[in-house]
Amino acid sequence: MLRIPFDDVLARLAAILGNLGFTPDRARACARLFAETTRDGVYSHGVNRFPRFVSTIRNGSVDPAAEPSCLSALGALERWDGRLGPGNLNAQTCMDRAIALARAHGIACIALGNTNHWMRGGSYGWQAADAGFIALCWTNTMPNLPPWGAINPVIGNNPLVLAVPRPAGHFVLDMAMSQFSYGALENYRRLGQPLPVPGGYDSAGQLTSDPAAIEASQRPLPIGYWKGSGLSILLDAIAAVLALGNATHRLSTDPLRESATSQTFIAIHPAALGDAARQSQIADEIAASIHAATPADPAVPGRYPGEQTLRLRAENLAHGLPIDESTWSTISEM
Amino acid sequence: MLRIPFDDVLARLAAILGNLGFTPDRARACARLFAETTRDGVYSHGVNRFPRFVSTIRNGSVDPAAEPSCLSALGALERWDGRLGPGNLNAQTCMDRAIALARAHGIACIALGNTNHWMRGGSYGWQAADAGFIALCWTNTMPNLPPWGAINPVIGNNPLVLAVPRPAGHFVLDMAMSQFSYGALENYRRLGQPLPVPGGYDSAGQLTSDPAAIEASQRPLPIGYWKGSGLSILLDAIAAVLALGNATHRLSTDPLRESATSQTFIAIHPAALGDAARQSQIADEIAASIHAATPADPAVPGRYPGEQTLRLRAENLAHGLPIDESTWSTISEM
Repeated sequence: MLRIPFDDVLARLAAILGNLGFTPDRARACARLFAETTRDGVYSHGVNRFPRFVSTIRNGSVDPAAEPSCLSALGALERWDGRLGPGNLNAQTCMDRAIALARAHGIACIALGNTNHWMRGGSYGWQAADAGFIALCWTNTMPNLPPWGAINPVIGNNPLVLAVPRPAGHFVLDMAMSQFSYGALENYRRLGQPLPVPGGYDSAGQLTSDPAAIEASQRPLPIGYWKGSGLSILLDAIAAVLALGNATHRLSTDPLRESATSQTFIAIHPAALGDAARQSQIADEIAASIHAATPADPAVPGRYPGEQTLRLRAENLAHGLPIDESTWSTISEM
Repeated sequence: MLRIPFDDVLARLAAILGNLGFTPDRARACARLFAETTRDGVYSHGVNRFPRFVSTIRNGSVDPAAEPSCLSALGALERWDGRLGPGNLNAQTCMDRAIALARAHGIACIALGNTNHWMRGGSYGWQAADAGFIALCWTNTMPNLPPWGAINPVIGNNPLVLAVPRPAGHFVLDMAMSQFSYGALENYRRLGQPLPVPGGYDSAGQLTSDPAAIEASQRPLPIGYWKGSGLSILLDAIAAVLALGNATHRLSTDPLRESATSQTFIAIHPAALGDAARQSQIADEIAASIHAATPADPAVPGRYPGEQTLRLRAENLAHGLPIDESTWSTISEM
């Protein structure tokens, strides 16, 4: 594992994107989202994923020059066309637009269709919270999860992001509807470890914690079994209906061709309701209540979602971003 | 199990509420929400729960005469005070208000504090969908679930409702953040059945499907383990911060004194974006994709959330509402 300074990573990725058809500003913004994702400890969706992102530009799934545009609107609700541009830039633009509209209307929603993988969903939660806004946003994905009661993948793991701004550290949750991603199953298998909790069915239809058995059956579990399955369906429906975009069942199951997805961005302006001090106090008390819970393992105190991010961010800025040696070598040769 | 005609149930409950200080209109509206919940097959939160609701009026937790009022607003975002009125009427009023604001602004949010148990959350999803609106709403609850990694209840099961209108049958999801409620654990125990999937930890800290062991340890599982725990925390934070209301940790754990809760109601107006025919088609195709999944048990085809409700509704209207004999006897003597 290498440790590369944040600014060096940013400069290298931006240079590559500049050569792939991004304008200098957009190259830097897109590179920054990848670098910040690794900085914040979400290694699966940051710099390590950059070579795959470049492949989707080269194969035409992602159009580096395309910018999203508004197609129709009523007040605080707008429908945008992502025009198959870079998914992370499209998402950032739409969350910015939701924030601007929510500043005027109290709440706003941008429905984005025809976009691409947004990489780390949490980025847009942090973006909103840093601006002082509550956020709810989600994306659909290719079919990668059987709905409850079925054996073949028909629904998506549709990551959902919720964020609440707090001066002492935002609450930011970024969760997919699958209990474990295929990437996580692969990691456990390579380490020769069982999953910490059951993660799917084996080919005989028994619940199992064996990652290889789930990879073989292609039957990972939705979170909460029937509940996460239902939530995935509703998130997909809201995103696709509002965007007049593709629902999960219409998306390619080739990871390099998973394109033209649908997303929803909602921002809420808590300051519009006044009493920011009381709002912070309420959030602080919630954080304190989680910290005060009795841990099952005394060495592992309770955490609120987002709490670990600030620690990892500080560590990675101090010591450099941790990047797989082979990934950095690939990136250095691009 | 008795079968009582819908109109008879409605009239009986309304008469009781009229004697408890409800105006005639509010008595009928409140009674209707209970009767419709049973009509739609959610027996745990309908007429069977009515005697407990009456107890919370008699003990002063619920003020039958209190009506909610708007405290502050910016455009499509409003903060309301529930004034400790009947939770289901407060929720219905706030969803109505969210719908009216969303009709003008495209999307709207009502933050409601100081309210009471909303009974069946799905009621407000159906309400929005029947009006042609997408809805997201949720409530916090008393602490009844340990956060991930802890052994004592600090977070709530915070039911979350999502709804998408569809002429051929709305998508409506109504799910708590616990894998099984305490009521569900009790039902399985009384039937002498194990849970269909692990539902919590036993007192030794092992995952178990034994309902009695979980009742004893008081360690039911959040859906998706760490994921549902995080979602519960974020829903609580958004509801309490926007309403300037109580967070879960401040609520009484006595079910008859669980009062002054916080809720969030978001409505979105899809028709504002035009092309209702295309929106319906997208939703229909999603329903069809779920129906087309290969079921693990060929006798149990896939269903979208809300699909079963229409079947139960028709059956219960035709044959009368199924109500426990002892509950109806209690209600008849009120």
